[in-house]
Amino acid sequence: MSLTIVGSVAFDTLYTPEGTKEKIMGGSAVYAAIAASYFTKPSIVGVVGDDYHAHKIELLQSRGIDTSDIRQEAGKTFHWIGSYLEDINSAVTVETEIGVLGAFNPELNIENANRETLFLANNDPDSQLAAIEQSNATRIAMDTMNLWLNIKKEAVKAVVCKSHVLFINDAELRLLGDHYNLIAAAQTVMDWAPSLDVLVLKRGEHGSSLFTRGGLYLSAPAFPLSLVKDPTGAGDSFAGSFLGVMTNKPWTSENLKHALLIGSVTASFTVQEFGPDSLLATTAQKIEQRRQELIKTVPL
Amino acid sequence: MSLTIVGSVAFDTLYTPEGTKEKIMGGSAVYAAIAASYFTKPSIVGVVGDDYHAHKIELLQSRGIDTSDIRQEAGKTFHWIGSYLEDINSAVTVETEIGVLGAFNPELNIENANRETLFLANNDPDSQLAAIEQSNATRIAMDTMNLWLNIKKEAVKAVVCKSHVLFINDAELRLLGDHYNLIAAAQTVMDWAPSLDVLVLKRGEHGSSLFTRGGLYLSAPAFPLSLVKDPTGAGDSFAGSFLGVMTNKPWTSENLKHALLIGSVTASFTVQEFGPDSLLATTAQKIEQRRQELIKTVPL
Repeated sequence: MSLTIVGSVAFDTLYTPEGTKEKIMGGSAVYAAIAASYFTKPSIVGVVGDDYHAHKIELLQSRGIDTSDIRQEAGKTFHWIGSYLEDINSAVTVETEIGVLGAFNPELNIENANRETLFLANNDPDSQLAAIEQSNATRIAMDTMNLWLNIKKEAVKAVVCKSHVLFINDAELRLLGDHYNLIAAAQTVMDWAPSLDVLVLKRGEHGSSLFTRGGLYLSAPAFPLSLVKDPTGAGDSFAGSFLGVMTNKPWTSENLKHALLIGSVTASFTVQEFGPDSLLATTAQKIEQRRQELIKTVPL
Repeated sequence: MSLTIVGSVAFDTLYTPEGTKEKIMGGSAVYAAIAASYFTKPSIVGVVGDDYHAHKIELLQSRGIDTSDIRQEAGKTFHWIGSYLEDINSAVTVETEIGVLGAFNPELNIENANRETLFLANNDPDSQLAAIEQSNATRIAMDTMNLWLNIKKEAVKAVVCKSHVLFINDAELRLLGDHYNLIAAAQTVMDWAPSLDVLVLKRGEHGSSLFTRGGLYLSAPAFPLSLVKDPTGAGDSFAGSFLGVMTNKPWTSENLKHALLIGSVTASFTVQEFGPDSLLATTAQKIEQRRQELIKTVPL
């Protein structure tokens, strides 16, 4: 087990053009860990309230996910209420009930502190920094969201400066890199983030790209889906599966190419149903099968 | 010579984050014909006012473009004033001086009526329909824009129903297919357009995709550019080069794959400078070189 994921464990209430779901299983660390569990044995560091269901923790454990650092505290589990009604590709936060996540200060047990890779799933950058300080990981990967770039940009930049891998979507990259051009923004971020080796740009329904400090640039299509019910967790699933498949592997260009495609197709399972249901229902074999199909869409 | 292009010949005034240009060479037929001229000998059907410069016509002729159906009429050349200041990927029409284009009714001479491929570059759908009625082309390709989908949607649909190839961007496809999901919208359009064999989806900086009635789906990345000075004409250049390279070739999946990449990289030259300057300055060899570089960015 060599992937520790620090992030939110949550309830999500979701409004999409395909329907509404109330208080279903969610959270950045949950999606990332389930996606990673097809390729490695991840561990979650997070917090839930006393209203969280034991069977959800058991579900994670049944996937081989180490939940020993999911603390349960008095109070309510973080509850995100989000809408995609205006634009399926852009989440709008309707309301957040912060609950126990408000005072969350991650505490990594010795195993979680010593795993090879630390993934800071989307969360308050101050708690991401706190996790870095406790970690002996040789590889630190991170995600973030527009909220933090709008209200705590300097803290986000501090996390980026201590990370080796950044997962970010197009709108966020424009904010972080202070440039409307995505290629220029990626180069700018690489210039000021001394440790950053890999930047993965998530383009949503349009695919994804990967930049390395060594000058490698890759671009992968999205798996074509005529029905997207709920985009929640797509980015977390992308990052979780990417890191899961890279765990204990050398970060060669060949392995990065494979991981980029795996991230893309794993996310495609997530968005087919509300919540993590369709991500939970897939298999490593189905992911690989979809990767093979995706390769055929490339005009070579 | 087997590609006839009907569309606008214009002056453009452009505002982009990289600068402003006043009354430079523009028009959908102009960009498409210059792009096509690297691969075939296209012909333009259009109209200009008495303020249009003879040296611009001569420039087109020097590229091997047949301009015998560019009529000159008393009045002003169509002048488009557009801004990309809000969003580099989305043109906002600030003002149009319609001039002689307002009463434009395309008249195809016998050569233009008998060419293998008719490309209806972006223009009023009523004039696109008028061109179809005069043409004996065995392949009709078309482009459009959000303006026509907003004010003359039924006429646009009538043109689509008579076309074999449709070039369309993501926002336009959502409008035409009445669905936020691009894959579903493409399928919907294929369902009601009986002759449509190929739909090319232009995703701007995110690349492009191609759907065929036979079920082929392809997705090509965009050529990565850290500086885009002016996106005007990118879509026209894409379509022009795609059709130019397909002229007199069988529409096999192999040839379609090649054309999709050629369209993508030819457009990348267009956007590097204001107006058609950088498109005019490239060569077939440089286009092929960039196609080879683009292939390397695909994670295979």
